[in-house]
Formats: sequence, C-alpha cells, structure tokens
Amino acid sequence: MKYILVLLFTGLIASAQSPKEQLNLMPWPQSVAVNEGNFTLSKNFEVNITGNPNPRIFGGVTRFLRRLDGRTGIFFKQGFIAKLNEVPNAELQINCTKSGKIGLYEDESYHLEITKNKITLNATSDLGALHGLETLLQMLQNNSTSFYFPASKIADFPRFTWRGLMIDAARHFQPIDVIKRNLDGLAAMKMNVFHWHLVDDQGWRIEMKKHPKLIELASDGMYYTQEEIKNIVKYADERGILIVPEIDVPGHGSAILTAYPEIGSKVITLTGGTSEKNIQGTAIATYGIERNAGIFSPTLDPSNPKTYQLLSELFDEVCPLFPGSYFHIGGDENEGKDWDANPKIQEFKKKNKLATNHELQTYFTMQLIPMLKKHGKQLMGWEEIMTKNMSKDAIIHSWRGPNEGVVAGQSLIDAVKKGYKTVLSNGYYIDLMYPIESHYLNDPMPKGANLSAEEKARILGGEAPMWTELASPLTIDSRIWPRTAAIAERLWSAENITDVANMRKRLEVVSFRLEELGLTHISYKAVILRNVANNQNTAALEEFSNVCEPLKGYTRNIGGTEYQMYSPLTLFADACTPDAKDSLLFDEAVKQYLANKSIENKANVSQFLNKWITLNKDLIALSTKAPLVQSLLPLAKKLSNASEQILNVLDNKSNIKTSELKELVEQCNTKVHADVELSVYESLKKLI
Amino acid sequence: MKYILVLLFTGLIASAQSPKEQLNLMPWPQSVAVNEGNFTLSKNFEVNITGNPNPRIFGGVTRFLRRLDGRTGIFFKQGFIAKLNEVPNAELQINCTKSGKIGLYEDESYHLEITKNKITLNATSDLGALHGLETLLQMLQNNSTSFYFPASKIADFPRFTWRGLMIDAARHFQPIDVIKRNLDGLAAMKMNVFHWHLVDDQGWRIEMKKHPKLIELASDGMYYTQEEIKNIVKYADERGILIVPEIDVPGHGSAILTAYPEIGSKVITLTGGTSEKNIQGTAIATYGIERNAGIFSPTLDPSNPKTYQLLSELFDEVCPLFPGSYFHIGGDENEGKDWDANPKIQEFKKKNKLATNHELQTYFTMQLIPMLKKHGKQLMGWEEIMTKNMSKDAIIHSWRGPNEGVVAGQSLIDAVKKGYKTVLSNGYYIDLMYPIESHYLNDPMPKGANLSAEEKARILGGEAPMWTELASPLTIDSRIWPRTAAIAERLWSAENITDVANMRKRLEVVSFRLEELGLTHISYKAVILRNVANNQNTAALEEFSNVCEPLKGYTRNIGGTEYQMYSPLTLFADACTPDAKDSLLFDEAVKQYLANKSIENKANVSQFLNKWITLNKDLIALSTKAPLVQSLLPLAKKLSNASEQILNVLDNKSNIKTSELKELVEQCNTKVHADVELSVYESLKKLI
Repeated sequence: MKYILVLLFTGLIASAQSPKEQLNLMPWPQSVAVNEGNFTLSKNFEVNITGNPNPRIFGGVTRFLRRLDGRTGIFFKQGFIAKLNEVPNAELQINCTKSGKIGLYEDESYHLEITKNKITLNATSDLGALHGLETLLQMLQNNSTSFYFPASKIADFPRFTWRGLMIDAARHFQPIDVIKRNLDGLAAMKMNVFHWHLVDDQGWRIEMKKHPKLIELASDGMYYTQEEIKNIVKYADERGILIVPEIDVPGHGSAILTAYPEIGSKVITLTGGTSEKNIQGTAIATYGIERNAGIFSPTLDPSNPKTYQLLSELFDEVCPLFPGSYFHIGGDENEGKDWDANPKIQEFKKKNKLATNHELQTYFTMQLIPMLKKHGKQLMGWEEIMTKNMSKDAIIHSWRGPNEGVVAGQSLIDAVKKGYKTVLSNGYYIDLMYPIESHYLNDPMPKGANLSAEEKARILGGEAPMWTELASPLTIDSRIWPRTAAIAERLWSAENITDVANMRKRLEVVSFRLEELGLTHISYKAVILRNVANNQNTAALEEFSNVCEPLKGYTRNIGGTEYQMYSPLTLFADACTPDAKDSLLFDEAVKQYLANKSIENKANVSQFLNKWITLNKDLIALSTKAPLVQSLLPLAKKLSNASEQILNVLDNKSNIKTSELKELVEQCNTKVHADVELSVYESLKKLI
Repeated sequence: MKYILVLLFTGLIASAQSPKEQLNLMPWPQSVAVNEGNFTLSKNFEVNITGNPNPRIFGGVTRFLRRLDGRTGIFFKQGFIAKLNEVPNAELQINCTKSGKIGLYEDESYHLEITKNKITLNATSDLGALHGLETLLQMLQNNSTSFYFPASKIADFPRFTWRGLMIDAARHFQPIDVIKRNLDGLAAMKMNVFHWHLVDDQGWRIEMKKHPKLIELASDGMYYTQEEIKNIVKYADERGILIVPEIDVPGHGSAILTAYPEIGSKVITLTGGTSEKNIQGTAIATYGIERNAGIFSPTLDPSNPKTYQLLSELFDEVCPLFPGSYFHIGGDENEGKDWDANPKIQEFKKKNKLATNHELQTYFTMQLIPMLKKHGKQLMGWEEIMTKNMSKDAIIHSWRGPNEGVVAGQSLIDAVKKGYKTVLSNGYYIDLMYPIESHYLNDPMPKGANLSAEEKARILGGEAPMWTELASPLTIDSRIWPRTAAIAERLWSAENITDVANMRKRLEVVSFRLEELGLTHISYKAVILRNVANNQNTAALEEFSNVCEPLKGYTRNIGGTEYQMYSPLTLFADACTPDAKDSLLFDEAVKQYLANKSIENKANVSQFLNKWITLNKDLIALSTKAPLVQSLLPLAKKLSNASEQILNVLDNKSNIKTSELKELVEQCNTKVHADVELSVYESLKKLI
C-alpha cells in the first residue's frame, strides 16, 4: 500500500485537507482518491434512496443515521426511512440498480463520491450500498467544532466472496444479544458470512419440535428457539449476511447421544451366566453432556439405519430455518475409537468394502448429501471429510496445522487441486489468543503453490473461528474484536495491503467505533477488573493488564479438564487480551535505546521499568482486600525484580552477574501464574 | 436503625468478627444477628435442596453458584442443579415447604442461618428461598486470601407485597436483553413486580397476529414477538416476579389510532358544494406515531361500539400471554380535547347522562372490566380512573403531585378511604433524575393520614416508573440503578430503616455487585465518554461528570420537542447521573471547613477548587479534537472562575467584592449548557 500512497499523493499533498494516511478505513478500499475540500455535516443532512434496492436498505440507512448522530450529537430531522425517493433534494443520494441476494458471488461493489455539497453512493445492489455506508461512516473526520467528510472518490469491491466469522454456541451458550451485536460488527467490517456452530459435545442448541429430547436432555436449558433463529436469520439478512448453520457429526456427538444413545457407536459388553455356561451380550451405552474441553469418543453409528433416519428428520426440521444454500455438518476430529471397538461396525465395514475409518466416514457423509440437497443445501465440512470418494459438491473447510500434526493450510491446496471449493480457517483461530499480526498476514491464497486460475477461483475466502471453551457472553467480544477486523481486511482488501503498523494505527480507531454497535470488547475489561479488585481502584490491574496476555494456544486449559464449561471466566486472564497495550510501546523504546543510548532513550525505557516496580507494590496493596489479586503477585514480583536489576544495569549501579540477570529475566517467561504470560519478556531479554 | 444496632451490639462487639455495620445488605432484613466465627468458602462448597419447591429453585441455585464462583474465582464442582436431594451432605441446605405462586400476598419469608460448618436456608416457598440466596450473596465477606460468610442468623420478610419497577418500552423501545438484565436486578433487590408499559403515543410494542396493522403501521418495526413476551414472562417467573402489562387507553392513543383511525375521537369537518348550496360533512382524521414527548390529544372514541369491539379483541390476544392476575389500562392524562370538539361524542354524553368527560372516561373504563375479567384479570389504572362510579375492584395507581397541580400522594389516601387498593408511584419517578434521598425517604404509608388498619392494608406498596423519553438501551440501566435499590429497601425493610448515610454506604457495594448481572449502569459511562472525547483520554470528562448532573424534572426537554424519539442520547448529559460523586464529598469538606477553619480543612476544600481550575484547562485541551466537548466549556469555565476567586478569598489574597463573588457563584447555577447542572453550586454558595 505504501507505494500506491506515494504515487497518488504526489500531486495532492499541497491542497488536500485530509491526506489519505489520516483516514482510518478498514477494510481498506480497492481505490481511494482524496480531493480538495470537505462536506460539512449539519442538522439539515438527509438521505434519499432511489433505484430498485431490497427493502433492507431502509433499515440500513436508518441505522446509519442513528450512528452518525450518536457520534456527532447532531439532531437530524430524519427519523425512520421507509420509502424510496422521500427527499429528492437530500445531500446524500443512494442509488441501487437491483435487489441484493444473500449468498456467495453477489456483486457487492459500490462507488462513493463526496463533494463539498453532495454525497453520492452508487451500487449495483443494496448489499454494496450497505458496505458504502460503512465506508462513509469511517470517512467521518472532525476539527474542534465540526464534523465533516473529506471530498473523495472511492471505488470498492471485495477480493474474496466468503468473509466469515464462526461462533461456537455449544461450549458456552451465547445468547441472542451476543449474536446480534457481533452480526453488527461483521457488517461494519463488510463481512458476509456467519457460521453458527450449534451442536457439539457440550450441548444441542436448537429447539426441536419433533425431537424435544435434544433440548430436554442435551442443552441444560440453553438453546435458541426456532423463532429466535428465524429472527437472527432476518437480522443477518438485513445486514447482508449469510448464515451457515453447523450440526457437527458423526464425532463430537456427546449431546446428540445423550438424547439418542441408541445411535451411538459405543459397545458395552455384558457378561453373565454360570460357571458352566458363559452368557455374553451387548447393551446400549449411556452418554452425558460433556463438561470438559477436548476430543471425545462419543460418535454416531454409521452402520445403523436409525442414525440416518434421525439425521434426516433433524435436517428436515432445521434446514427450513436457514434460507441460505450451505449447511455445515462438521465431520472433524472423529478418531474412530468407538468404531474400532464395535464388532457390528467392523462387520459393516467389511460388508461394504470400506477399508478404513476414513472410508467409513465418507460413506456416512455421502448419506447426508441428498438429505441436504432435498432442502436446496450444499454440504460443507471440516477438512477431514475430504477423502477419496467425497462428492466434489462438498465445500472443504481447511483448518488444521502444526498443532494437529499437518502442514498449515495444506488441505486448502489439496482441495482446490482435487476440484473442491474451500474456505480457510487455519491461521484465523482467534480463540487461541495469538497476536493480530499472525492473523493479518495469513492470506487464503497460498504463496508459491502454483495454482491455476481455476484452482484459485475455488478458494472462496476465509473464516475466523471463535471456539468458546474459554469464552463467556461477558468475554467473547474481546476475543473476537478487534482482531477480526484485521482478518476482514485480509479477506476484502487487495493482496498487497500488508503494512502491519499502518493496520494497527487504523485499527485503534476502528475498534473504538465498533463499540457504538453495542460490542463490549472495550468496556467488559473494567467490569472484570472491578470484580478482581473487589470494587477497589482498578488502576494497578489496568496497568498490569497492559503487559499480560492470556496463555496462548491450548495452554490455558491443559488437558481440557481444568476448566469445566461452568467454571468462572471472570478472572484477570479474562480481562487480558492478545497484543497487550504496552508490549509494542516498550519494545519500540528498547529498540531505540539499543540503537542510540541517549539520555532520552534511556529515560524512555526506565520509565517502563519504574512503572513496573511501583505496580508490584500497588498490586500487593490491592491484594490485602482482594483474594483474586493474590495469584498475580508472583508474576508482578518477577517483573519488578527484573526491572529493578535492569534499571541498575542501565544506571551502571549494578554488580549483578549476567547469568543472574538472565535468570531474573527468564523468570518473566514463566507461564504458571494466573493463566497469563508477560508480553514484555522478549523485549526485556534484549536489554541483557 | 441506629438505636437497634446500638442495643443489639452491646453484647456482641467483643467477639463478633464481622460487626453488623460492615454488612452491605440491601434491602436490610427484618432481623439480623451476627455471631462469632465464619463459614469459609472452598471448592468443596455444594448445595442441596429438599422439600416441595417449585422447580424454579433449581435455576435459582445454579445462578447463585455461578455468581458466587464469578466473584470468588473458586472452581466449584457443582454445575447444573436439576434435582431434589442430589447432595445430602452439602454445606448449604435449602428447604422449602411448598411451591411458590407468582402474585401478591405470597409468603416470601425466609430464615438463613450460617454457622462455621453449615448454612441452612429455610423458607415456606422457593420465592422466599430465592430472596434468601440473594441475602447470602450479600453476606459474602473476604480478607486478603479467602472468602467467607460471617456466622449469623437472619429472619426476613417484606413489609409491602407490591415492590415494582415499570419500564416504558413505548417511547424508546427496550430490547429483550435490557428487560432481562433488569429483571435480574429486581430479583437481586427482592422486588416482585415488573410493570411493562407496552403501548403509548410513540409506539405499539406487542406482536398482534389478528391485528397485524398495529405493528406494521405503529411500531417502526420495534416490538416484542408473542414468543419473546412468553419467554420474558417465564424468565420473570423463574425469578419470582409478576409481570403486569399495560396498554394505555383511551388517551395516549396516537399509535393505536395510526393503525385504526376509525376509532379516534378527532373530527374533521369537510366543507364543499357550491356558493348556493353549502355541503358539510365529516371525515376520519389520520394519525401518526408521535415523535415528541408530552401529552397529546389522540384519544379513543368512547361513543363508538367499534372501539370496544377492537379493545375486546386486543385483550383476547394479549391477556393469555400474561398469566398474572392484573392488567394495567393506563387511563392517564386524557384531557378530552378531541371529545369536546366531537358533536357525536357530546350527544353520546347527553344520551347516557354523563355530565363530564371524567364520567365519560369512567363509562369507557367500566366497559373494559368485563373484557379483562373474562381472562381472570383485575383492572389497574393510573389515578385518573378513580371517579365516582369506578368499580372498587380496580387498583388505583397513585402518581400525581405538585408538577400536575395536586398534593403529592393525595390520591393514595383518597383511594384507600374509598375502598380501593392502591400502589404508590409519586415520589419514585426515577426518570426525572432526582437525588436518591428523595426516593428513599418517600414512604408508601402516608404519615399523619390517620388511616384505619383496613385502609392501610389496601396500600399494596410502591413502584418506580422508568419513563423513557430520554433513556435508550445504552443509558436506561444508569437511570434505574442504583437508585431503585434504595426504593426496594423502602418497600421491603422496616419503616424505621431510614438512615440515609448508612444506606449510601451499603448502596455503593450493592451497586457494584449489580454489575455481575449484566447491568451496564456503571460500565456504560466510559462508553459514552469515549464517544464524547472522540477516543481521546476520558479522565477530564470523568472528573467533570463527578460534579455534573442531568437537568432534573422535565427541564431537559422543554416542551417535549427538543428531543425526538430518535435524537442522540450519547451526550455528556447521558453519561451523568443524579447524586454526582463529588457533590457530597465537597459539601462535607465545606461543612467541616466552615465549622473549623483549620489548615487541613482549608486544604481539603482547596483541593477541590484547584482540581476544577485544572479541569477547565483539560477540557479546553480535549475540545480541540472533540466537537462534543465544546458545549461543556462555558460551564467548566464558570466553575473554574468561581473556584479561582473563592480560592483567593480562602487565601486572603482577594479584593473581590462580595457581590461580584456572589455573581460568579450564581453563574454556576445556570442550566443552559449541555443539558447538565453543576451539583456543587449549593456548596459553593456556602463558602461566600
């Protein structure tokens, strides 16, 4: 992007009032040209809509006006917009040629032109117009007294057609309002797919009228009613978002089998009789809702006709709730343990010439394709469904990587080469608390894979999965945002938009603005810290959270058994997020100091170190009335100890041996306290 | 309460570890005795339930456990509780004799006994047990490393049977999640009635299957589906709360008449014909959803049989959604303008010997009684329904006071003397931004009214009305809480619990704890201030909000036309609340200084004044990038000017004339900036 900017601005810098670098657009549009002058916002601002849009544009424009007046405090005259051409002379003119259809491959492009007196937004459909309104909101600038839009011309369209977020509502149930505000966040980031993970070992979350046992026995009372689901589908449609539901089978089956143990694969052998005559038999195993995290053995029995009978009935009830063309059937992490132990299943394999459990699972999955096709739906599944005989109509969801013992994203390449359409999730696992940069630079289009144009076209896009083993309704927004905004840019913007520093700068504003949608990714932190502090001043905790990050990957909940699905997620670790605020700042200060040991640069580094020494004392003071602070003290002390000695070294007041200092800094790399790690460890190491 | 405490503690102070004064219970129980020792909480803590409770106790105990582990970070073993006598040896034993019925006059008492090793909670029904669990949560104490309950014995029951909150979902629609979290707040404060104001000039909020026009034309798409309503009724039931729905008729009729203008009272006279022959006729007026606040003329036509036909059908559809025994029909603020102007209605009055519009309204209301009775419901209405011939079965909702030109609460006395049951709302109007003290000391039982025991028994209790002309889903919690907790105490606790300072001390903790229910009355403030500050540091705004309060009574929205129902409520005034944090502290400092002009006392006062001088500068600096800060500057400057001069006077460095100083302080009493007033004005005046 740097190069484009340089070229474009050569002729503009002298006259433009708002250089493009000042704009905090995200995802960055395909083409932006800033012109001289501004459109100043006043209470006379009105919007007019023409053309043949879908009525969803009316709600979209009404919400746009409410967000604009919320930000500016300007009392607009226009209230609710419900008709075409209501205000022919309005300053903002929106025209859409046709009604947008929710789904893939729709034309989502828009053209936005801002001049001093008029704004025009032209789009093929309302879907593009909704994107254009989000861009217009992001264009808002201000001086000390007024708000304005810089005169400009933007032409924009997405790079990928699948720009998704998945929310796991099974592990921790996420109420309707959580889903709604996140749909608003997706729309603001021009994302268009919401993948709703509705069934897993930890619960079945869909009201079933014909099979009520699923919610009675396998939901703990936490599920979406069918009306709520329809309501969410409508809410998503109004925001241009496709919903892809998921029922995960044949593995991850604890919840389904809690209600219907008769279609489970587990065998229980009964032994009885007398010493003379040994009687053996089998019985149906019982299952329970899973409370831990991990991969479990409960698996549907693919040899049992009842399994298909039930699944067919379930799809018949669930499919009509979702008008979209895709249905995700999971298919992941089936280790086949219960299949191997079940003689009936082994016999079935032999009879049907299925050599491996993979082939058996393919057999299973192939049965589901017509069940879904009946409802006009295409089957999608996690990459494990991609086996030799799998239908090419299936969409392959690429997710595994080194953690699963395979090459990251290899399945994506394999899929398109074999003729499958595919979506990338590997590298976008936002639940794992990795830094934003790792997600941002993860491109769905594999570099150096030598794909044909046809193969490339099969890469539909990407999707960020938000698994919820460790996320509650209180914390989930902070796990999704703002990092998903960076993923949105990867999926929408041009391939060469990869300047991380520039992205970070824009993201700060974008993240703040997401708050107006009701997202709680910023405000939730104070709620948790007040709880941890036991209603004392939270300043020290806030400060400590700026250098602490939750343990990454799968290390916070080792073995998946430390946290049950009802364990508290109101702890200090839950108030922390990846990319802790002081990490980058401190690292920058260290770099500058190492490059030039000036007094100023030294003072910059020392300021952090001194802050952390004080912080340790403040946390000790806080802990006298707050038991939840206790677990932080060892880590705060380690940071303080290292800071003290480094400070002495910087001041040439120290006689400490390098090995001792190293050991002190190494102590800052311990990951055994309060489920967090110190994000400044690597920078501290540089100072030794 | 002071006296009781003194008496009770004489024998205890020596040995008790947690003196009763340290307990932050609210509403204060009828009897509390603290004993020696503590019950220390550990991860082995479990709960067992016995007796014959309603199954709502299972959810109640599960929620109790989640709140307790959320606070303490202790990982309890118990997940979801769904059966009686699951853990016979559990440390907490709950026994309920019978299943509680949602409604008035239920036995809500409970006995809680905490000893070192065991806690027992006995209640007649689960309703009392739920109250007891709230008390137990409030009993939680901690030292530096652990959490415990002080050994104690509590016997408790409510003083009044009607302890309510009303939320107006018509003026600003309040989504389901707002209602749910406030129901949780009510339950935490042992309140048992939620009055749901569902229809007013600004909207009809109930999905109607047989009369879809009401939502199609009169809701702006913002309404509760019938399933959502049933879901809320169930949610309330699970928390021991009765829901009383309101459809406000015959006045406040704009929304109903937008859909059904044919039953309106307004007459439109048509004049036509030729110069020789004058033809006159009447036509049906048209109505629109009201966007302003105030009292409007659209009124149902009581002379039109169609009016009763429609209302009867509406009740037939709405009543079954609400299992409770009460239905509120509004009946307030009908000024009869359209009735007076309608010849047909005048004729109807004559024919039916109805001398006044009051009698006509009584005629109207009396028609509704059988419509409701058919569904087993008793009619309730605002006090205007209490006219000569009104049925004694009607419940009178007493609301008017000096603002409406009558004596506060007079209708309450009149009602019980005439034989009506009644509920007090006058004095509990939490939307009007009055200080907490005014609500806290407002007793439903009128002093010196000389009522018989029978008459007193007709005073059912009180209810806090939350009108929403100026409250959005973002701000409403801060308008309801924490002041409603003080009203809850007035309605539950003994009459003599009136120590305001003691209430304030307890309320600080109670307010903080309400946050765990998802209430946003604390966290919303930072959200608004970030918006006002345009994402700059909010410290100065936070500081200023500690001395600013929203304009009180009906003065923020003079004439009801400054704010439309879609105007921004994201302003500084919306981040402010009554009882601004620094007001009391500063007043205390001033009082101490005036009593004793010691150096220390002077320094205390000066500290505030200096802070406000700096604050003015900080706000000016902030405003350079934040237009929304501009409107605060004049007020901040006035406070700074007065502070500077008073500081000089305190330091004997001033030659300012008293009249000039008075004028400067008087400037701090202006109420024309940013819809807020300075809460320290009265205290500043004392310093002159």
